[in-house]
Amino acid sequence: MITSSQNPKLKLIRALQGRAKERRDAGAFLAEGIRLVEEAANSSWPMRFVLFDETLNERGMLQVESLRSRDVDVEEVSTSLMNSLSGTESPQGILAVLNEFQLPIPDFPDFILIPDQIRDPGNLGTLLRTAAAASVQAVLLPPETADAFSPKVLRSGMGAHFRLPIHSLTWDEIKRVCESANQRVYLADMDGQSCWETDLCQPLALIIGSEAEGASEFAKQLANQKVCVPMSGMIESLNAGVAGSVLMLEVVRQRWENI
Amino acid sequence: MITSSQNPKLKLIRALQGRAKERRDAGAFLAEGIRLVEEAANSSWPMRFVLFDETLNERGMLQVESLRSRDVDVEEVSTSLMNSLSGTESPQGILAVLNEFQLPIPDFPDFILIPDQIRDPGNLGTLLRTAAAASVQAVLLPPETADAFSPKVLRSGMGAHFRLPIHSLTWDEIKRVCESANQRVYLADMDGQSCWETDLCQPLALIIGSEAEGASEFAKQLANQKVCVPMSGMIESLNAGVAGSVLMLEVVRQRWENI
Repeated sequence: MITSSQNPKLKLIRALQGRAKERRDAGAFLAEGIRLVEEAANSSWPMRFVLFDETLNERGMLQVESLRSRDVDVEEVSTSLMNSLSGTESPQGILAVLNEFQLPIPDFPDFILIPDQIRDPGNLGTLLRTAAAASVQAVLLPPETADAFSPKVLRSGMGAHFRLPIHSLTWDEIKRVCESANQRVYLADMDGQSCWETDLCQPLALIIGSEAEGASEFAKQLANQKVCVPMSGMIESLNAGVAGSVLMLEVVRQRWENI
Repeated sequence: MITSSQNPKLKLIRALQGRAKERRDAGAFLAEGIRLVEEAANSSWPMRFVLFDETLNERGMLQVESLRSRDVDVEEVSTSLMNSLSGTESPQGILAVLNEFQLPIPDFPDFILIPDQIRDPGNLGTLLRTAAAASVQAVLLPPETADAFSPKVLRSGMGAHFRLPIHSLTWDEIKRVCESANQRVYLADMDGQSCWETDLCQPLALIIGSEAEGASEFAKQLANQKVCVPMSGMIESLNAGVAGSVLMLEVVRQRWENI
């Protein structure tokens, strides 16, 4: 059992809780809590090691046993150390250090999401979670967007990270992906055409800009068309996570109606 | 200028940042930041007093002048005191103490939202913000839902509080409102009928349960029908704020198509 706060595994975890650069340098990121560790295990994500403490519940302990049987490095830590490592107020007693790994972008994706300049980790996590539910086939992150693999984005993504290809790319690379897949690129914008009057059945990429700053110049140049969620009410805009989610589900609805 | 942290106005503000009971006892709540104070002023919400500091920008100072010309009690505080009062990391230099006040529920509302056991302030604020955008005509809060007038819910509501009738009621009272308005009551539930195959054009109330606990027994009894956002993807549920928002916008879409 690990009882020293100077243990190298614990030092690595503390580094991974920090800035994106720490995660890039280590080639790893953190998944905390039973649900995230389960999702990672179920998708056979490459694991560096897993830590747990005695407060872990039965469902979590079953997961620990299953990981051990698959030769994953699993170690117990003292509860006080686990609590000091946890990024949440009510730690569940398990966390995993996972290797950086990218699911491949399909050759002909019919639905791509591009979160542009989304800096709030909760909003980015919400967009990823909805993207997984809406069968988005690739998420392309331009340079100015928050790191998708920070602990907060992982938590609000609820497992989306282990199911979606998420690639951090330059705008040039994003353009190449969209062109090679012959995607029509839509930019979510309040001045756009109503999503209810726009045919979203063909292969498309959807750019969601930030609430504070709107879309970047690169995004505006790449987009073929602007699209909006029409508002009947009096508030001028939806939360960026909600607006993006409503648009993604509208794509799903139209394709379902079109079957 | 207020420079003492013992000033009674500052004591009141600290109390209002706390539990719902403090706000009920004082009959007041806080609105922080330029946008919220503007929204409150634009809807002629009853104000007890407003505090600002010298860091307030020009748009905010115009608001201060306008409030003074309407005989609102406006006072300057030292920047260090303002920073100590602020609930945000980047204070904008203005906050208002507003009187508790309820916009009336219309006699025949055609769209009611009932957030059930939503305890996360960010989710509740998102639902309120979308509700205002979706022309919801009343929000009825059952006993187990978070206090809609906490600073966090105000912040994520982005002004919805000043445009929507928001009433905290018992389940008996909620039932009476729904019955008297002849509302069909829908409960958002993954086992429900697809919202795309459900006619949402008639007057309705929509109950959104919490992610963690689902809907309460009261909610299940009150509901006439369950309705869901169909998932094509692999994640089993959307964030409660997103699921509720998608359903509200689907109501708007159907009514718009039906015109």
